[in-house]
Amino acid sequence: MKNRHVDVAVIGAGSAGMRALHAAKAWTDNVVMIEGGAYGTTCASVGCMPSKLLIAAAESAHAVQQAPEFGVNIGDVDIDGVAVMDRVRRERDRFVGFVLDTVENIPEEQRIRGMARFLDDHRIQVGDHTIVDAKRIVIATGSSPSYPGSFAELGDRLVVNDEIFEWRDLPKSVAVFGPGVIGLELGQALSRLGVDVLMFGLGGQVGPLTDPEVMESATQAFSYEFYLDADAKVHSMVNVEDGVSIAYDDHDGRTRVKTVEYVIAATGRAPNVSGLGLENTSLPLDEKGIPEFNAETLRIGRSSVFIAGDVNNDRPLLHEAADEGTIAGDNAGRYPDVKPGFRSSPLSIVFSDPQIAMVGSTYSELSQRDVVIGTVSFADQGRSRVMLKNQGLLRVYADPANGRFLGAEMFGPRAEHLGHLLAWAHQSNMTIGQMLEMPFYHPVIEEGLRTALRNVHKQLRKPMLRAA
Amino acid sequence: MKNRHVDVAVIGAGSAGMRALHAAKAWTDNVVMIEGGAYGTTCASVGCMPSKLLIAAAESAHAVQQAPEFGVNIGDVDIDGVAVMDRVRRERDRFVGFVLDTVENIPEEQRIRGMARFLDDHRIQVGDHTIVDAKRIVIATGSSPSYPGSFAELGDRLVVNDEIFEWRDLPKSVAVFGPGVIGLELGQALSRLGVDVLMFGLGGQVGPLTDPEVMESATQAFSYEFYLDADAKVHSMVNVEDGVSIAYDDHDGRTRVKTVEYVIAATGRAPNVSGLGLENTSLPLDEKGIPEFNAETLRIGRSSVFIAGDVNNDRPLLHEAADEGTIAGDNAGRYPDVKPGFRSSPLSIVFSDPQIAMVGSTYSELSQRDVVIGTVSFADQGRSRVMLKNQGLLRVYADPANGRFLGAEMFGPRAEHLGHLLAWAHQSNMTIGQMLEMPFYHPVIEEGLRTALRNVHKQLRKPMLRAA
Repeated sequence: MKNRHVDVAVIGAGSAGMRALHAAKAWTDNVVMIEGGAYGTTCASVGCMPSKLLIAAAESAHAVQQAPEFGVNIGDVDIDGVAVMDRVRRERDRFVGFVLDTVENIPEEQRIRGMARFLDDHRIQVGDHTIVDAKRIVIATGSSPSYPGSFAELGDRLVVNDEIFEWRDLPKSVAVFGPGVIGLELGQALSRLGVDVLMFGLGGQVGPLTDPEVMESATQAFSYEFYLDADAKVHSMVNVEDGVSIAYDDHDGRTRVKTVEYVIAATGRAPNVSGLGLENTSLPLDEKGIPEFNAETLRIGRSSVFIAGDVNNDRPLLHEAADEGTIAGDNAGRYPDVKPGFRSSPLSIVFSDPQIAMVGSTYSELSQRDVVIGTVSFADQGRSRVMLKNQGLLRVYADPANGRFLGAEMFGPRAEHLGHLLAWAHQSNMTIGQMLEMPFYHPVIEEGLRTALRNVHKQLRKPMLRAA
Repeated sequence: MKNRHVDVAVIGAGSAGMRALHAAKAWTDNVVMIEGGAYGTTCASVGCMPSKLLIAAAESAHAVQQAPEFGVNIGDVDIDGVAVMDRVRRERDRFVGFVLDTVENIPEEQRIRGMARFLDDHRIQVGDHTIVDAKRIVIATGSSPSYPGSFAELGDRLVVNDEIFEWRDLPKSVAVFGPGVIGLELGQALSRLGVDVLMFGLGGQVGPLTDPEVMESATQAFSYEFYLDADAKVHSMVNVEDGVSIAYDDHDGRTRVKTVEYVIAATGRAPNVSGLGLENTSLPLDEKGIPEFNAETLRIGRSSVFIAGDVNNDRPLLHEAADEGTIAGDNAGRYPDVKPGFRSSPLSIVFSDPQIAMVGSTYSELSQRDVVIGTVSFADQGRSRVMLKNQGLLRVYADPANGRFLGAEMFGPRAEHLGHLLAWAHQSNMTIGQMLEMPFYHPVIEEGLRTALRNVHKQLRKPMLRAA
């Protein structure tokens, strides 16, 4: 057993871990990054990138289907599942390659391979070969797909999102459990690529939305494309010869039985904390075994251990994981002079079509205070209609006391771009009046946003408090 | 001859004129709007809207062509020119219908039909039926396509952009003169819809760009799609039986002769001032006969006459025309207490593919001062590549003295959206540092912008003055 004494140890070589290492190195070169799995981030390997690649193929298939409405007639469409998945993997591997290059550029003595396990607050055993004694530690072990135990009985008919990108061909049919971010993105993409999709949820939740009107708009639009029951009653799932036979109640309450090739569990991701030996430390843990930490410093309790990225279960998004990695690594470096890190305004996006974007405070977070709400439907929005993307709803929330823009939830065209515009406005503390003074070109989808802002503005001028 | 005495007369019922009338009515109901042509704005009838509709069809055709790269195979593609033009006109007429509704909602006594002609600084003769004596006047007569006189010899083989949208079918081939905003948008769209396109310019100018590197990127990309000579030598154009025979030098200097069905003159638009009788007034005119006005108040000289929209030849863009209409109408209403109007940060967009966007100060405007320039190529930008839109260049200009964002020129994917983000940041007086603190999601095209901003930021930290 080797022994290493370091100033900072980072557990996990993902997006958060690599940023943490980089930030810590501004303070000390005596650092080490420990990785037990394969190198390559969740984002590049099984997350953001391959899903966007699959979606790009799906949008292409959709554009082809829509072409005749523009006067562009096409012959028979043949979606070559092998070619689709081949491009997804080929390009995905290229992105992973960049990550591996970054890892390669970290000096070898700053990297250790093996599963990390805390022996106490400062000592980490790596595999069966090394004990790292670290003055400060950053936990950045990420997350893994999670699903109800009963799903495991489906054996290799059960697929978690991570595994989809290993498919050599597209299946004929799938049932997707969980119409959350991952379920919607993958389920809709598969549906557009010709896969027969059944999507089941619980409690009516669709995507990360909290605004009931926006969620209703999204639910309707997705239901039009594939079978979606966001509050489903599924009686049974049984492996049969050619797949999984699912018995479920349809929208009319009639029990149906359908066989799908695969069941995709998009039922959430869980922080990777088991096996870390946190029980051997004095770190405060919540009931799920996740360390309790300060959201501004990412410090766990009063310890010299920090936690960043998906493992802390706070904002499981790449750009947030990167920011958290920087904050945690910097604080591990500067410890004990720990400082709150800068966090940008909340922005989350679902790359469905139409897309979902959420900015600033959510409808649900604002439900306890007076807010003024401006609404626009994209059904008749000029440019959206020109492009045949005229679908969806945007709601903008403002503070009646000072006219400040508080947040927005949107389901509609180019929401990824409107989301950025709104998030930048939010972080700049703009009022609705200031936003309306900004340039809006013509004809653009941003003019839909302006309609919603004008709608809020009218209400702000004749104050009309409404309990959301 | 009838006589009308009004507080405010607005000449022109286009986008600027209607806004001017609306703004003036906040001050007085004794107003009148005079229109000599058909109702319906340039934007809705022959400008922004029909061009975006043609572009939407072209992007559909392009998406179909690109589909096999994603694994979506298609049979024979047949672009139904009649169906393409039918949708363009049908949707265009719908947008025009909204304009006509707006006009209808203006009380009849506030509208006069007929060509307006100044008799002196206050009196306007309308057609042969009315003399309007107006205390204040807003000129908002718009612009019309203009082309060199020799083009007229081509007779009905010459088409100006306004006329394209009346085509019942797509031609087989066209020569487009003028690779400016209109020429690029229409020429590329026609090319993607299967029309054989030759595009000729003078002096190498492509689009409204002033940054030579961005222009080079655009020139290359467009040249890849259709024949483009931005500094062309055209020897002759002669009408022949089946079109126009054009003799021109190719890129290698060899003279070629080619016959095209139509010649499209996209050689600019000229303010509609002839026939207005401006010579009967004391208004100061420049050498082109356009009134000299204050850009902030839109007041002509020391008169009580204002000028708004394309006719003033300042910022011929819909959103600027609308703002100008509001400013001019407001000032005509409040005269003599004339005030500078609020102008938003400059933003212009060309809806080519990739798109062009220009924000804030142009490269050329900044050429006399020290600026720091950040650059990003979209060739390897992650999300752009995922979508097969990885083409183009963005350059960002900053003030080395204070790090402030001064402007940007871009040729690249989704430039209309990045343009808004940048224009809002410009109007908010943001520094590059502040922009880098804003949220950037992943994977998005906005991350390309971030690369350019980081590039500037690095240079700002170790000041390195460069004469642009």
